[in-house]
Amino acid sequence: MKEALVSPPEIIAAARGAAPTLASLSTAVKNSLLAALADAIRAGRPSLLRANDQDVAAAEARGTRRALLDRLLLTPARIEAMAEGVRRVADLPDPVGAIMGTTRRPNGMQVGRMRVPLGVILVIYEARPTVTMDAAALCLKAGNAVILRGGSEARRTLGALGDIVTAVSGLPPGAVQILNPEGHAGVLELLRAEGIDLVIPRGGEELIRTVVEAARAPVLKHARGVCHMFVDRFADLEMAQRLVVNAKTQRPSVCNALETLLVDAPIAGLLLPGLIDALRERGVEVRGDARAQAAAPGVVPAAEDEWGREYLDLILAVRVVDSQEEAQAHIRRHGTGLAEAIVTERLESARRFLEAVDSAAVLVNASTRLVDGAEFGLGAEIGISTDRIGPRGPMGLEELTTTKWIVLGSGQIRE
Amino acid sequence: MKEALVSPPEIIAAARGAAPTLASLSTAVKNSLLAALADAIRAGRPSLLRANDQDVAAAEARGTRRALLDRLLLTPARIEAMAEGVRRVADLPDPVGAIMGTTRRPNGMQVGRMRVPLGVILVIYEARPTVTMDAAALCLKAGNAVILRGGSEARRTLGALGDIVTAVSGLPPGAVQILNPEGHAGVLELLRAEGIDLVIPRGGEELIRTVVEAARAPVLKHARGVCHMFVDRFADLEMAQRLVVNAKTQRPSVCNALETLLVDAPIAGLLLPGLIDALRERGVEVRGDARAQAAAPGVVPAAEDEWGREYLDLILAVRVVDSQEEAQAHIRRHGTGLAEAIVTERLESARRFLEAVDSAAVLVNASTRLVDGAEFGLGAEIGISTDRIGPRGPMGLEELTTTKWIVLGSGQIRE
Repeated sequence: MKEALVSPPEIIAAARGAAPTLASLSTAVKNSLLAALADAIRAGRPSLLRANDQDVAAAEARGTRRALLDRLLLTPARIEAMAEGVRRVADLPDPVGAIMGTTRRPNGMQVGRMRVPLGVILVIYEARPTVTMDAAALCLKAGNAVILRGGSEARRTLGALGDIVTAVSGLPPGAVQILNPEGHAGVLELLRAEGIDLVIPRGGEELIRTVVEAARAPVLKHARGVCHMFVDRFADLEMAQRLVVNAKTQRPSVCNALETLLVDAPIAGLLLPGLIDALRERGVEVRGDARAQAAAPGVVPAAEDEWGREYLDLILAVRVVDSQEEAQAHIRRHGTGLAEAIVTERLESARRFLEAVDSAAVLVNASTRLVDGAEFGLGAEIGISTDRIGPRGPMGLEELTTTKWIVLGSGQIRE
Repeated sequence: MKEALVSPPEIIAAARGAAPTLASLSTAVKNSLLAALADAIRAGRPSLLRANDQDVAAAEARGTRRALLDRLLLTPARIEAMAEGVRRVADLPDPVGAIMGTTRRPNGMQVGRMRVPLGVILVIYEARPTVTMDAAALCLKAGNAVILRGGSEARRTLGALGDIVTAVSGLPPGAVQILNPEGHAGVLELLRAEGIDLVIPRGGEELIRTVVEAARAPVLKHARGVCHMFVDRFADLEMAQRLVVNAKTQRPSVCNALETLLVDAPIAGLLLPGLIDALRERGVEVRGDARAQAAAPGVVPAAEDEWGREYLDLILAVRVVDSQEEAQAHIRRHGTGLAEAIVTERLESARRFLEAVDSAAVLVNASTRLVDGAEFGLGAEIGISTDRIGPRGPMGLEELTTTKWIVLGSGQIRE
């Protein structure tokens, strides 16, 4: 319940004060703090469940939607997963202090880059209280101070999580601040204040837009995820069906789920009948252009403005195109730059797609659902960025750092 | 004279239209375009000198300061240097298309990152017309479309440069747009428009502030360069004198020149008398705290608010500190995060300084004047960034690109 007591400038000053200490902590110390935090979460389970019960009851009383209630809910299993997630961050390699690309210049000085923490990170998120410890652990491991501002529907749960953090001895004051999410003015004031190095919004389109408009510091975000898959005339059609079904149905509510399928005209009649049967068996509504409708039964006519919609649901738009160039043009016009895939057995088709399509992730013969920090080997993920400056794509520990140039000389001057 | 004819949205649409073509150009084609641009600059010398004469005469008539007149002035030698600079960019390695850090994941898919152009870059600068071709060549080599908006005092020169660009056959329309700098509203409208990926302001503090406040796209900038050098008690005093004199006097008007010297108390009496003589011989005014004044004659008393000033002139502030920690605290409080150096022969002193001081460049036993793209081996430099997100420090060709993740699979799905 911190925000009631301290103002945004005080919150930021506390974080800034902690930042140099956090930056200088050894990996061993950070790992033992993470272990202590995991233990504190397990020890705090009863009070956490009590606080969460009250939040859930209050949300129910307000008539909150079922899906939102589920996001808000903590169970003993979810609390254990939260603790285990924090502990696992201790196992990840520490990105801080690595020195890269050192070269010796003609004048004899050595020039390289050292990886260092970003400084102070503000995370703004919605209902899901598990984001709190997830983000706290990643920021701490990367040597950053973090300010966490969750949704007001979770305020009692967040209060209990704040008490858990306070119970971790050895954590520098200001290193992890879990704010009381009462009142909207506080967020805007925080976003407009100086002294924050990065803002990460995690939530829906509206939250992200509000943050982008108000923030003074850089914001790492992805706006919407309208992912495309292009099935080339040289595709393995069985593989294509497997990839489309997985990308659309494995978890349709997330940003890397497939929204639009583009099919190369010569194989539309071969691919679509079986594929659309398989999709409809899994409850997917398929909306297609005239050629997709002609190729297979059960295709609902696509609206004029069908393309570029983010369904986040069991709906797929299908369009038949005459060439890869037409598919690329469609993606340039309707894509959101998150992830696009091609299915093909022909090297030249893959090469052209990889070079020409400019999304945060471009895949050949793989499901868009694989665009994810853990799947890419980053160990964990704090979000996916579709921005072009700063980290692009899944953001892990390394993406929560920056670099500084270091120069080792022996008296070199500029001539 | 483009801006009179086309609006900011049209300018941006032209650049966006050129971007995919530029991104797909081979290195050989880009290099031949750069060679053609260099030739066109040489061929355009007479009209360039004529236009520049008129700009300089008009500026003189308005009573413009001598230093500004010199920045505006083109001579045959400067035009030759401009052409040669463009030609040399052709010799630099092409950063686009490189694939880095590819790993094979447990499911067999290969994941890596490919370097790709940023897209559309807007460069806003003041009097110096040579920035135009410099920036155009670097953006072109990195595969970006560039919009160049110079100062109004150079408008005839910029018009002649625009004619030169138009004369280069094979350059995609919209790839390099040199705007007519008449009217301030145009800049703000450009900065607020959508479709620009990066803004680079090159000029004084006021220009940078205006750009940061108005821009919708990310801005890469450094605000002020207040560089510090700390001479440790274990320094080679002869080296320290050489480094301080070079960093302060080799070119005092630029951002990586030394502004504040911090001297470890035990060696103040040994270092300062000779050093201050050497500085004063070169016309430097030395302003010091009480202990610096006591250590050597000829030190002017520092004002209470002396620290953190960016002189850009033959003035140096000197403070005696009791420890490296005190020097670090001074730098944290008064530094601008551009470049700080330590002079020491002791490894442990160097190690602590390198780890704790968080500037874009941290140097051991080298002049701050060496913080420069060419000196660091980047080949060329479009600016120095002190931002923490995106490239930090000197920005060369690679810093004008971004990366995208690429995935090569064989039918992998998310389980």
